[in-house]
Amino acid sequence: MRAVTVDPQGTRFTDRHEPPSPDGNDVLIRVLGAGICETDLQLVRGYMGFRGVLGHEFVGVVETGAWRGRRVVGEINCSCGTCAECRNGLQNHCPHRTVLGILNRDGAFADFVSLPLENLHPVPESVSDVDAVFTEPLAAAFQIPAQIALQSEQEVIVLGDGRLGNLCAQVLKLSGCRVTVVGKHERKLALVARLGISSVALDDLEVRRCADLVIDCTGSPTGLPLALRLVRPRGTIVLKTTVAGEQTLALAPIVIDEVTIVGSRCGPFERALQALERREIDVSSLVDGVLPLEQAVSALDRARTEPVFKLLLAVDVGFGSH
Amino acid sequence: MRAVTVDPQGTRFTDRHEPPSPDGNDVLIRVLGAGICETDLQLVRGYMGFRGVLGHEFVGVVETGAWRGRRVVGEINCSCGTCAECRNGLQNHCPHRTVLGILNRDGAFADFVSLPLENLHPVPESVSDVDAVFTEPLAAAFQIPAQIALQSEQEVIVLGDGRLGNLCAQVLKLSGCRVTVVGKHERKLALVARLGISSVALDDLEVRRCADLVIDCTGSPTGLPLALRLVRPRGTIVLKTTVAGEQTLALAPIVIDEVTIVGSRCGPFERALQALERREIDVSSLVDGVLPLEQAVSALDRARTEPVFKLLLAVDVGFGSH
Repeated sequence: MRAVTVDPQGTRFTDRHEPPSPDGNDVLIRVLGAGICETDLQLVRGYMGFRGVLGHEFVGVVETGAWRGRRVVGEINCSCGTCAECRNGLQNHCPHRTVLGILNRDGAFADFVSLPLENLHPVPESVSDVDAVFTEPLAAAFQIPAQIALQSEQEVIVLGDGRLGNLCAQVLKLSGCRVTVVGKHERKLALVARLGISSVALDDLEVRRCADLVIDCTGSPTGLPLALRLVRPRGTIVLKTTVAGEQTLALAPIVIDEVTIVGSRCGPFERALQALERREIDVSSLVDGVLPLEQAVSALDRARTEPVFKLLLAVDVGFGSH
Repeated sequence: MRAVTVDPQGTRFTDRHEPPSPDGNDVLIRVLGAGICETDLQLVRGYMGFRGVLGHEFVGVVETGAWRGRRVVGEINCSCGTCAECRNGLQNHCPHRTVLGILNRDGAFADFVSLPLENLHPVPESVSDVDAVFTEPLAAAFQIPAQIALQSEQEVIVLGDGRLGNLCAQVLKLSGCRVTVVGKHERKLALVARLGISSVALDDLEVRRCADLVIDCTGSPTGLPLALRLVRPRGTIVLKTTVAGEQTLALAPIVIDEVTIVGSRCGPFERALQALERREIDVSSLVDGVLPLEQAVSALDRARTEPVFKLLLAVDVGFGSH
């Protein structure tokens, strides 16, 4: 089958990759389309030492088992089901987990992918293929209200005007917060404004410690130090993006101002699909292009070097017809 | 009056310091005795650039106003009462605050000290002078259950076997947690064991990610990185001690394991005094010596260089008679 693979020698498109052979509770899924995420760009640069097929945001059609023929999206963490974390409802934190296209499991930039049946969610009829690809990152944004008790009228600053920053801002606005997005890209900030959300260029930002909540979606070592200068005493900072390697910062302000820092990763697919079905969140405005799978390597390069929001890969010729 | 002062030239005892002249709502307090804290040792080394009289843990007798003659302890943050933080009940975080013996306000290593009346708490008759000096650090330990919803039987690791680590461990045990103290000092760990709390030497610690809660009382840049290797996914780390300067660490595990980090500083005096009155917490075992105020400079030196728990300064000859 066709697939986009990464290993220490580089990132490659091939049309001779062995298709997955599902075992146990896994089912085979024919991929319709997939999305390129910041994590993919990091994996291409060697983050986590991943080898295999890239891709963890996708929509597809089940090919085997009881759900055959259903259009689905899939949660990316595949847990063992028997360890202490799994028994305590923390399957996403199973120490034995594999993660689709990220950790010890081939991903969705390919004709076929394999996932356990319990990871799959049927896509509602009214949700388009393109919108469905956003389920995974949108779920990650909905993890914020799942972890933190938000109050309406709270002052929230989202650092980062990219894909995830945009989705987090929309989710927090939906929760009644007063949201401002801080970014570096005129075009991306203009989209934020069109969605009815305040935006400000980083260079024009007035740095004052008055935000109740700061969401770091920068993917940059500068994110947390800036967040600490914007959050009010007893306020909360949510770290939404991982930064590879080590970074240097002063921790004393965390103690003196009694700040809470919350790490936040994958989130609830049910809520994300519901929001897409109800059209509570606009994801289609984020699509900057749909490219065939064969052009994945140049698409990854473009996502890394140009200020695009979201590039999608059309794996099946029918992608986008729904 | 007699006083112990710090400035960029060093730390000094003097018997010719100008006594405070209380204005506004401040009252004059005759100091009976005071305690040496880790923060004092940092201030002596230049932390926060403090100049003035040291000391923020004390017991004294009110000399002026309606409370004259009462034995009191005092909260250390003196707020403006009018800013947004003060109006929102965050007086301890008032940006205009002075802090006793720490920030723009002379402290209690002196014959007299001045504090606003609203900062004072009467010491219950059954609480000794010596125990009363521990009100401030014990309140800081009680800030943990004030900030975090603790569950009984939670696995808690306290990093640091010193004064604050010991008090935090006792408070968390009182809350029903299963507490283990990790430290470097045989004698200090032995005291922890005598208090009925598990203890383990740092060198013998089995590093596994299974603690629900880790309290960093190390005052060291090594504290947080170790805490991140001990806390379970979705667990909480409380930073109880400030570390001056910057430090380097990997932040990705905070996001991947969805860890919460909570900065924690000053706490509720009422609860600390209640615990001392009910004898729920043993503080007197922590006293390693009581020295006259004249010997404060060598006492500070001893607190810095020897593995002592707590050295107290007898300011008034009557200190300890109650």
